[in-house]
Amino acid sequence: MSTSRRTFIAAAATLAATSVGASPAVNNYPKLVHHVFFWLKNPQSKEDLAKLLAGLRTLANIETVRGVHFGVPASTEKRDVVDNSYSASEILFFDDLAGQKTYQDHPIHKKFVADCSHLWERVVVYDALAA
Amino acid sequence: MSTSRRTFIAAAATLAATSVGASPAVNNYPKLVHHVFFWLKNPQSKEDLAKLLAGLRTLANIETVRGVHFGVPASTEKRDVVDNSYSASEILFFDDLAGQKTYQDHPIHKKFVADCSHLWERVVVYDALAA
Repeated sequence: MSTSRRTFIAAAATLAATSVGASPAVNNYPKLVHHVFFWLKNPQSKEDLAKLLAGLRTLANIETVRGVHFGVPASTEKRDVVDNSYSASEILFFDDLAGQKTYQDHPIHKKFVADCSHLWERVVVYDALAA
Repeated sequence: MSTSRRTFIAAAATLAATSVGASPAVNNYPKLVHHVFFWLKNPQSKEDLAKLLAGLRTLANIETVRGVHFGVPASTEKRDVVDNSYSASEILFFDDLAGQKTYQDHPIHKKFVADCSHLWERVVVYDALAA
C-alpha cells in the first residue's frame, strides 16, 4: 500500500474515532465478515504460528477481500465465556456473498490451504452478515 | 453520524477497495478485536433476536469502541468447519487492552448484560490482538 493511501486511511480512522460527540457508526464495515479460528497441532511452536500467520497474510491479496485482521489471543481478563485456547484468528471482510465465494475458490486461498492445513488440528468458521 | 462523515468514510472504503493493483492493508483495523457469538434460548424467536441486536447496538456508544459489526449467520456454503448454529455475532474493535477494559466496566455494557443476558443460553468470546 502506498504511503499516501496509508495516510488517508489512517486519517479516516482518526476522524471516525475522534469526531466530537459522535459514536461509531453501527456496522461501519463491509457487510459480510468471515471469522476463522485456528488451533495448531503444535500450539507451542512459534515457527508453526509464524508459518500460519504468513499464510494468512497472503489472503489479503484476493481482490474481493475488503479488510483483514489477523490475531492471536489477547491477554484480556480470564472469564468463563472467553475462549483463549485458539492459536490464531482471522477476520476477512467482504461486500457480499459473491465476494466470499470468489475468495473460497481463489488460487491464493487454495494455495494457503495446501501450504498450511497440515499445521492445524481444528478450524472453526463463523460467517456473519450485517444485521 | 453526519452525512459528511459517512461520505468521507465511504470514500475511504471505496479508495481502499479500488486502488489499482493495491491489496488491502494487513491488519488495517484497530489492534484489538473482541469477537462474541450468542446462542439464543429461543433461536426461532425473531423478537428475541431483535431485542439482542438492539442491545448490541447500544455498545457502539461506548467511547473506546472504535468500530463495530453485528451480524447473523450468512448463507455461505455449508461445510464441516462452518458453525452457523449461533444466533448473533458481535465484533468490537479497540485500540488496546485498556480500551477493552473500559468497555467491560462501562455502564452501557453492564446495562446491556442486565437487559439481555436472559435471552441467551450460551456465549463465546474470542479476544484477539493483531499479529
